[in-house]
Amino acid sequence: MKAKSMPNGTITSPQGFLAGATYAGLKIATDGVLDLGTLYSEVPCTAAGLFTTNKVKAAPVLLSQQHLASGKAQAIIVNSGCANACTGEEGLDDAAQMARLTASKLGLLPDDVLVASTGVIGTRLPMDKIDRGIEGITLSRNGGHELARAITTTDTFAKEIAVNMEIDGKQIAIGGIAKGAGMIHPNMATLLCFLTTDAVVDTPFLHKALQRAADVSFNMISIDGDTSPNDSVILLANGLAGNKSIQEGISEADAFQAGLQKVCTYLAKCIARDGEGATRLIEVTVEGAQSLADARIAARAVAGSTLFKAAVHGSDPNWGRIVAALGRSGAEVEAAKIDVFLDSLCLMKSGCPQSFDKEEAQALLSKKEVPVKVNLNLGEAKATAWGCDLSEEYVTFNSAYTT
Amino acid sequence: MKAKSMPNGTITSPQGFLAGATYAGLKIATDGVLDLGTLYSEVPCTAAGLFTTNKVKAAPVLLSQQHLASGKAQAIIVNSGCANACTGEEGLDDAAQMARLTASKLGLLPDDVLVASTGVIGTRLPMDKIDRGIEGITLSRNGGHELARAITTTDTFAKEIAVNMEIDGKQIAIGGIAKGAGMIHPNMATLLCFLTTDAVVDTPFLHKALQRAADVSFNMISIDGDTSPNDSVILLANGLAGNKSIQEGISEADAFQAGLQKVCTYLAKCIARDGEGATRLIEVTVEGAQSLADARIAARAVAGSTLFKAAVHGSDPNWGRIVAALGRSGAEVEAAKIDVFLDSLCLMKSGCPQSFDKEEAQALLSKKEVPVKVNLNLGEAKATAWGCDLSEEYVTFNSAYTT
Repeated sequence: MKAKSMPNGTITSPQGFLAGATYAGLKIATDGVLDLGTLYSEVPCTAAGLFTTNKVKAAPVLLSQQHLASGKAQAIIVNSGCANACTGEEGLDDAAQMARLTASKLGLLPDDVLVASTGVIGTRLPMDKIDRGIEGITLSRNGGHELARAITTTDTFAKEIAVNMEIDGKQIAIGGIAKGAGMIHPNMATLLCFLTTDAVVDTPFLHKALQRAADVSFNMISIDGDTSPNDSVILLANGLAGNKSIQEGISEADAFQAGLQKVCTYLAKCIARDGEGATRLIEVTVEGAQSLADARIAARAVAGSTLFKAAVHGSDPNWGRIVAALGRSGAEVEAAKIDVFLDSLCLMKSGCPQSFDKEEAQALLSKKEVPVKVNLNLGEAKATAWGCDLSEEYVTFNSAYTT
Repeated sequence: MKAKSMPNGTITSPQGFLAGATYAGLKIATDGVLDLGTLYSEVPCTAAGLFTTNKVKAAPVLLSQQHLASGKAQAIIVNSGCANACTGEEGLDDAAQMARLTASKLGLLPDDVLVASTGVIGTRLPMDKIDRGIEGITLSRNGGHELARAITTTDTFAKEIAVNMEIDGKQIAIGGIAKGAGMIHPNMATLLCFLTTDAVVDTPFLHKALQRAADVSFNMISIDGDTSPNDSVILLANGLAGNKSIQEGISEADAFQAGLQKVCTYLAKCIARDGEGATRLIEVTVEGAQSLADARIAARAVAGSTLFKAAVHGSDPNWGRIVAALGRSGAEVEAAKIDVFLDSLCLMKSGCPQSFDKEEAQALLSKKEVPVKVNLNLGEAKATAWGCDLSEEYVTFNSAYTT
């Protein structure tokens, strides 16, 4: 059965998950804005995580990787406003203390708690505020919405979704929340994403399914070419749906994979659409590549091209920048075979410029979603990447982030 | 003897080189601005060229690569306003026609003429204007200054230099001009650079010397992460100085290499400083890397980080973005060993934030040249890269380049 979106769905839509958030005072000049939250499962979960490829990893990432080595977890504590990155040994102690405080409150072991942080790099967490904040969090079955807001930094809207489907005669749900906005680039392409399911899922398959879902979603979006030290995607499966355990190769695995990808793709597109200063979502589909790897790097190069992003912002059909990005992407391309379309409007055919209605092109570029289609005409592989336009506001915003 | 800058030096400062430029009408709404020019040597030259790594190569690049296969050339014809890229077979014919027209006027064979173009991608050259323009160019010993202006597009100033030195008892000179501004990224990092010398230089050494000089100059600058299909660096040596031929391994080779690097580094820094919308030059030196390759990619990652560039624009000492860029650069780094300085002001030591005078940091970030120093403390290798700040003007400019 195909996964369906649940109305008002969020990370606490699957059974047995509770969440809550509070204002701990971690952000500059944003009194009363949620900045600290907890996700909790009533029973232990199988757990999988994907983390930043940046060699400079934030303290909470190093700690969560350790705690995930067991393949089990039962809670996540997360803050925004301070990344706890580039903070040395003391930062590691602070992350461990966040896990201990949360475990103590929930009656868990510190190893059962994962930690995530996002915000300014290079400043210590105010641990007194964190301590008081954790104490003040109230968990509820509806708390996913609060948690989705608490993890945002420069996001303009909370990103949350849940889907459900029947598997093995049982209703199972998958929920998720994410935050993005800046420093978004593969791999990983999201700062923070937390996913839950009440399905019973085999541990090795859970990790594979998460990697596959991230490869077509979070790893296919780009905002600004920078990769944060804090990027984390975590999936918890608490098994309360009572289905037969989902493993690689059984038919239920495909249904679960599709549902998970629906959740991840939705959240990834939300992140791209909400890039700092962005006014439009750019969707780039590359077909006819020699390999899937080629299709992916080619689509990402176009979606991430600073010059093309600026052109989209001005609704300027400067398609040469698409071709230039394809050529430098590293993918195999032959200039004389490339076709480029804006939606169904052909701009270049077999490497030659086509005459097109400039006003029609400008109208397509002015839509909320700008669909770019490329055919490399070299093979069968296909991939889609998402990005956003580059606006003056991005620069204004990022030229005074800490001041 | 060390190379010295020549007053008012340009590409025609070495003996036997003439140049000239004209207004052919290739640019939109810029009446009377030079847009077509010729460089000519009175005698045949040994020649070396480096071209874009973009798989989509403009027609003039493909043609010049063919013509350079002989290792000889005697003239260059170059236009701005139209890149003659993504123009198919007809574009190749147009580039060949530019070489034929120039050869015919100068009494050369078409194979002796190299061709370069820069400007908008995906439109055909107006060959009638090119034809009349080539006919109207007057060559002179002082024409290098005109040619330097003719190759500019969105550059705000012409980039030219010449140095001279004594080699083998003879005075030899090396001159160069370049244009940059947008689509600047290794490799190659410049759109167009032409270099001349009157030294006698062995062909294999000429190519090696050019590659080495480009590796520490044009390949170490980044403006916006995009690589143009038109990037070309060409070096012509006409031998009129009459020195003993410079070959790999002889002591004169080092002196020539140093002089060539002085010219190329000067031009590369001019290009970075004059990035579209830029107000500041960022110089990033990475020391203590495990390998030269690591030092180079680490320095370039910082100089090219969109987020750090935006922070510099706002004089925001958000040094976490430097560390984040180092971590994702691909270079070997250990977070706990990294030192980061703004000039001599220490921001991070052994991976830990240092308390520093924020006003002093803001003052350093507000200077015309912002020196960032990083020590990875892992080895002995060192490299310097250059970039520029990212301003609102960059976006405004690039969102309406063709409209």
